[in-house]
Amino acid sequence: MTASHALFPGTFDPFTLGHLDVLKRAVRIFDSVTVGVAAHHAKQHLLNLEERLALIEACVEDLASVQVAPITGLLVDAAREMGACSIVRGVRTAMDLEYERQMAQTNQALWSEVDTVFLLPSPLVAHISSTLVRQIARMGADIRPFVAESALPLIASAVEREG
Amino acid sequence: MTASHALFPGTFDPFTLGHLDVLKRAVRIFDSVTVGVAAHHAKQHLLNLEERLALIEACVEDLASVQVAPITGLLVDAAREMGACSIVRGVRTAMDLEYERQMAQTNQALWSEVDTVFLLPSPLVAHISSTLVRQIARMGADIRPFVAESALPLIASAVEREG
Amino acid sequence: MTASHALFPGTFDPFTLGHLDVLKRAVRIFDSVTVGVAAHHAKQHLLNLEERLALIEACVEDLASVQVAPITGLLVDAAREMGACSIVRGVRTAMDLEYERQMAQTNQALWSEVDTVFLLPSPLVAHISSTLVRQIARMGADIRPFVAESALPLIASAVEREG
Amino acid sequence: MTASHALFPGTFDPFTLGHLDVLKRAVRIFDSVTVGVAAHHAKQHLLNLEERLALIEACVEDLASVQVAPITGLLVDAAREMGACSIVRGVRTAMDLEYERQMAQTNQALWSEVDTVFLLPSPLVAHISSTLVRQIARMGADIRPFVAESALPLIASAVEREG
Amino acid sequence: MTASHALFPGTFDPFTLGHLDVLKRAVRIFDSVTVGVAAHHAKQHLLNLEERLALIEACVEDLASVQVAPITGLLVDAAREMGACSIVRGVRTAMDLEYERQMAQTNQALWSEVDTVFLLPSPLVAHISSTLVRQIARMGADIRPFVAESALPLIASAVEREG
Amino acid sequence: MTASHALFPGTFDPFTLGHLDVLKRAVRIFDSVTVGVAAHHAKQHLLNLEERLALIEACVEDLASVQVAPITGLLVDAAREMGACSIVRGVRTAMDLEYERQMAQTNQALWSEVDTVFLLPSPLVAHISSTLVRQIARMGADIRPFVAESALPLIASAVEREG
Repeated sequence: MTASHALFPGTFDPFTLGHLDVLKRAVRIFDSVTVGVAAHHAKQHLLNLEERLALIEACVEDLASVQVAPITGLLVDAAREMGACSIVRGVRTAMDLEYERQMAQTNQALWSEVDTVFLLPSPLVAHISSTLVRQIARMGADIRPFVAESALPLIASAVEREG
Repeated sequence: MTASHALFPGTFDPFTLGHLDVLKRAVRIFDSVTVGVAAHHAKQHLLNLEERLALIEACVEDLASVQVAPITGLLVDAAREMGACSIVRGVRTAMDLEYERQMAQTNQALWSEVDTVFLLPSPLVAHISSTLVRQIARMGADIRPFVAESALPLIASAVEREG
Repeated sequence: MTASHALFPGTFDPFTLGHLDVLKRAVRIFDSVTVGVAAHHAKQHLLNLEERLALIEACVEDLASVQVAPITGLLVDAAREMGACSIVRGVRTAMDLEYERQMAQTNQALWSEVDTVFLLPSPLVAHISSTLVRQIARMGADIRPFVAESALPLIASAVEREG
Repeated sequence: MTASHALFPGTFDPFTLGHLDVLKRAVRIFDSVTVGVAAHHAKQHLLNLEERLALIEACVEDLASVQVAPITGLLVDAAREMGACSIVRGVRTAMDLEYERQMAQTNQALWSEVDTVFLLPSPLVAHISSTLVRQIARMGADIRPFVAESALPLIASAVEREG
Repeated sequence: MTASHALFPGTFDPFTLGHLDVLKRAVRIFDSVTVGVAAHHAKQHLLNLEERLALIEACVEDLASVQVAPITGLLVDAAREMGACSIVRGVRTAMDLEYERQMAQTNQALWSEVDTVFLLPSPLVAHISSTLVRQIARMGADIRPFVAESALPLIASAVEREG
Repeated sequence: MTASHALFPGTFDPFTLGHLDVLKRAVRIFDSVTVGVAAHHAKQHLLNLEERLALIEACVEDLASVQVAPITGLLVDAAREMGACSIVRGVRTAMDLEYERQMAQTNQALWSEVDTVFLLPSPLVAHISSTLVRQIARMGADIRPFVAESALPLIASAVEREG
């Protein structure tokens, strides 16, 4: 019985209640889980890497088996280095699955020992998308239905900075 | 670190190379996996419960952490009794996911502690369906691209019995 | 400003909390809504037509603008006779939509003045399916997460009758 | 430049304007096309094999490069025997594609030289389904929006026979 | 019997025959409909807000119960202010529905009294996309199959301006 | 029996093993196939038009009936000019089909004689996407599982140029 280790990768701009829900399900399955935060991200970002890492740290402090780390190169290289043979992804829709299947098979072509494990978020939070949260935050509306309490100050100051 | 236990349920009429592929992926993630065979099944069956159990036993004899067992009542009751908090399902298509999501949320309404874990079969075997294998076997055609070598005699005798 | 009237058709074996959720949304949009219960239904039924009508009557007694009626012929003929130019359908999944689109366009080919209006059930009840509820009820398990309190006695006696 | 030959298989109970639309597109691509009619079919049929063959013959008499033939065994065996390396299928929805992909890959596992070619019916007829046409015909309603004029007498007499 | 009011929001760059088709269906259901034009839009726009408003005004002048208005903030705030409890959206594909479901549930998290009503455009215009129309117009090709006659001059002058 | 000619259009940045697989299937169906390379492309490109043309030429030199050509205007105009009544597209997922259907119907609205023919790539290469290949190449990782041997030098020098 070896300790099982999973990588839960994403951009997390910001980390939402949907991400937290999937993470908690992964924690029940794996001995340890690393939340891997993509260092670079193509879309017009709200939070920089340091803010995204800090925000997740604040959200997961009660989850003893969870670590947070940046990912700079290929996802499979990061997984291999940290000894994680499972990549965890939340799937909300059929459309998500199609995209994720493409990614999963590409990752397996790059490293044959890695598997992707798909988990369903609770239907209560399955509609939450980081893109929509950024839009709503930028319009000055209330984002408490979408992110953890501890995420609010960091997002508020990022919105203010964009001004 | 508790031992993790997963239930991989299905009708398995017959257990195919696609099922075996998903099972082997589950074995890499969980400390033990039980293949749960639905005792009753609505579709016009080829193999009876005993044959389906025996066929799977023959296919998994090299997988030390795998057990095979019939399921007679509710799936979540079976999972609870064997202490399995994870239900493993293979998803091949977007359509599969829609159906599985409905099942997973219904199961969680019946037992809140159970999660469903979705795994992707290899693209080499993802098209294999038990329904098609039954049709092809009944037409007397070669089913070796679809099932394990050890499954062939049982299927052949069931087809012969149907006449 | 003419009174708008919609038809909400289905087999409703049984009428679930998912159906009730969609109906309540229709009530907010239309001046009156008729729940149309298909007289014949192909699947192995649990409740007969009278029971299905009675069960829905019990569930909708607080909804003043709702009527319940059987449908015996073509759906569009029933809609035309009752002066309902809108057919209401709940859609839970992408798969549902594909099927419903086919039905909606076939109905419009039969009567060009009819439109189908799609509503989303709440995510809390979107997973509920009559087929699964019948299976769970037949196994003797608790169906209170899926149907209205007032539906329980009729379902219980139908299950008992089946023995 | 060899003559290209395609097989357009189906149950065709009945052959609809949707099937005819796909067939005419296939005729523009291939030198000859055989409409292959599945001899056995699982669903509760309206037309028997002879009627289905006769109905299609009546619909395609203006299409010089089209033949009609029954298929009794495996689809790929029929294709191989008639020298047809392409199987033509109409796809109307995303759901259709998922099912067809499974069939296509299973067929290619049985005969590696066969390809499936997917064509889109015109949006004007894409919603037409044989299952719905059978239901509408059995209710005595007008099916002229869905099938060719020449198909009407055969369907009418089959409905009458069912009584 | 209160007057029912719906909001039909979009970017409408440009408003197409597909949008017009959905709008006309909404007009048959609701006592009044407001076409809400998103003031800001992320994609590389062809028409500015004033042009988009003017183009729609020209297309809807025969529809007495329709108003046109810009939307500057959150969609649900606009709906609430104009007393519209229904948001109307056209869905063409299964993919559309997945995206719309996410939006609809996010909107309901922000204002619980709002419902989204999905309508199907006619299959004759369901393929029309504003993005493709912009591309085709910029290539100097004929866009009359896609937009109303009254929309042509405004689009032509916008294309000319881009040079 | 006229010679059949198909156009296989794309951006091909870069042309992958998935594209090659679809092309080889088209070659078995049509007398000649032109790979049409979109001159302009919106996404952040890796290879310019000349490089994309040269790369494809290198990949198809064994396929006698294949030509490579740039496309500058509307796709249907290019097809008409080269006498190609069939447009070939690979579809990997249900999502792909939804997008392709929209394109196909838009193209048919512009030129009624053109049909789109959909082919399935082998499941071994169906996950390959040019977008992912560009990302992987830019990270300096090995792209040999995704593109032909003869494509490697051109991609390597383009990555180097970007620095």
